[in-house]
Amino acid sequence: MPTLERPFDEELKILKEKLLEMASRAEEQIALAVRALKARDEALACRVLEREGAVNRLDIEVDDMCLRLLALRQPMAADLRFITSGMKISSDLERIGDLAVNIAERTLDLLKQPELKPLIDIPRMAEMAQAMVRDALNAFVNGDDVLARDVCLRDDQVDQLNDQVFRELLTYMMQEPGTISRAVDLILVGRHLERIADHATNIGEDVIYMVRGKTIKHHIEEGRATGLKGCAKGE
Amino acid sequence: MPTLERPFDEELKILKEKLLEMASRAEEQIALAVRALKARDEALACRVLEREGAVNRLDIEVDDMCLRLLALRQPMAADLRFITSGMKISSDLERIGDLAVNIAERTLDLLKQPELKPLIDIPRMAEMAQAMVRDALNAFVNGDDVLARDVCLRDDQVDQLNDQVFRELLTYMMQEPGTISRAVDLILVGRHLERIADHATNIGEDVIYMVRGKTIKHHIEEGRATGLKGCAKGE
Repeated sequence: MPTLERPFDEELKILKEKLLEMASRAEEQIALAVRALKARDEALACRVLEREGAVNRLDIEVDDMCLRLLALRQPMAADLRFITSGMKISSDLERIGDLAVNIAERTLDLLKQPELKPLIDIPRMAEMAQAMVRDALNAFVNGDDVLARDVCLRDDQVDQLNDQVFRELLTYMMQEPGTISRAVDLILVGRHLERIADHATNIGEDVIYMVRGKTIKHHIEEGRATGLKGCAKGE
Repeated sequence: MPTLERPFDEELKILKEKLLEMASRAEEQIALAVRALKARDEALACRVLEREGAVNRLDIEVDDMCLRLLALRQPMAADLRFITSGMKISSDLERIGDLAVNIAERTLDLLKQPELKPLIDIPRMAEMAQAMVRDALNAFVNGDDVLARDVCLRDDQVDQLNDQVFRELLTYMMQEPGTISRAVDLILVGRHLERIADHATNIGEDVIYMVRGKTIKHHIEEGRATGLKGCAKGE
């Protein structure tokens, strides 16, 4: 197929496509794992474990491709930042895939026990985390730092929902010790989803860096940490 | 000061030193956080929160330095792999620093409640995780893939100890529901330490890749995942 693009642009396009594919697979893994949890579907949870390899293989492919581009193309400025961001994003997506597998493992453990209660907040957290992953990748491929910043800001909502889930499950355990083992499994699922949102936030931060050429990494965190949670200020 | 080294070698040396400094600070953060937890020392836990910025600033410095080296030096082969590995390792060390902060936050929460029991296994896990971080960085600066592989293999021991801590704390909660909130905090501390060991393992995998020029990433994991935990094989 004839094209007016330079081969280097073609390669960058392939890199974008691979990262988008990785993100869509990682997102699907989260969706499957949480659907398996909600529907108490063992076969679905197993499918998440079986599909782990695909995201991992893409991570290796992206890594190899980025290294090759760095070595052969000797890119400068914006292209260099694009490729090094790609490497980092790939590694975040791979960890997101791992966390989806962790959710599936917890689900298999939960399926050996009676249902604690119908799940509402955990599937909501999962949807929020998935949307963050999707938007972070769209921000990356379109160089959209406004969307990337929006992703970073949504992290707090997931954290708040997770705190709420956590407190509710603590209450369950205290009122009815027979629920402890199941409630702890669900607390861990909440944590995994919170960490998925953290990785999406990392991607958002990388995109902002890539677009603006300067880092905002840690600034958002530091803004949050004001007051050092219970520690005297100025200590 | 006159030197026989090429400036590029000088720069790589500075990069190594920065990463070693980052690792030693991250390791110290783990040690402080777990000492604060064991000794129930609030001021020490607060110190971990105050010192978080230092690791984050080093992460930004290392990242900038790596990008500059990639752009200006256009390194090939081994040097290229060294620099891109440096970027990944920096990001793992930064997350390790975050996890130490999470442990300190849990500690502050635990200090509001009476002590559950004297801690033995959690400090042991912390020591193992710290040693993994230290050895992973030594493997990196010395290009020692044998030590790096050893770090990766030790990850299973930390996982096992964490499973043991987890089961013990579940038993506590079931026998005495008044301990639930504290036991959950300690379960989360165990998780954070397990994740620190995972990051040290990531660094080990990167070092092996850097030294051998091919990836072993995911192979160790896949070896572990055989049998897919309770799922029918070949499904």
